[in-house]
Amino acid sequence: MKARVFVTPKSTVLDPQGQTVRAALHGLGFAAIAEVRQGKFFEIALASGTTREQAQTDIETIAHDVLANPVIEEYRVEIVD
Amino acid sequence: MKARVFVTPKSTVLDPQGQTVRAALHGLGFAAIAEVRQGKFFEIALASGTTREQAQTDIETIAHDVLANPVIEEYRVEIVD
Repeated sequence: MKARVFVTPKSTVLDPQGQTVRAALHGLGFAAIAEVRQGKFFEIALASGTTREQAQTDIETIAHDVLANPVIEEYRVEIVD
Repeated sequence: MKARVFVTPKSTVLDPQGQTVRAALHGLGFAAIAEVRQGKFFEIALASGTTREQAQTDIETIAHDVLANPVIEEYRVEIVD
């Protein structure tokens, strides 16, 4: 079983990394780019024999406690087979 | 129009960041975690009036030339409305 966790800065939080990428893209001539936000992305493989419920609980806990900082970031969890 | 670009290290490339996260999760008691790979994730907003074809071409070029290093990373592009 596999899981994916997406972590992005909250929309109310400044994202200097994304702003830098946007400025660089404008400099390269991509004028249509209005905004860029950069986040992190985790692909997690779970040991075989893990149930879907266990995976959901574990990954949710891991995303909240370890991978994301819920004060400034939001996260989304996807369980894939 | 919005686009998402996912950049992950190629499966043949070592991912020390992911290995560190995996070791940390094992240390915290999450024994079911077999592998972690960490990547980057970009949410890009395009100026209104951009056609879907233009967006697809631009974002593909940006992902290949700017956001990812195709020697060691692979990327995936998603165009969303």
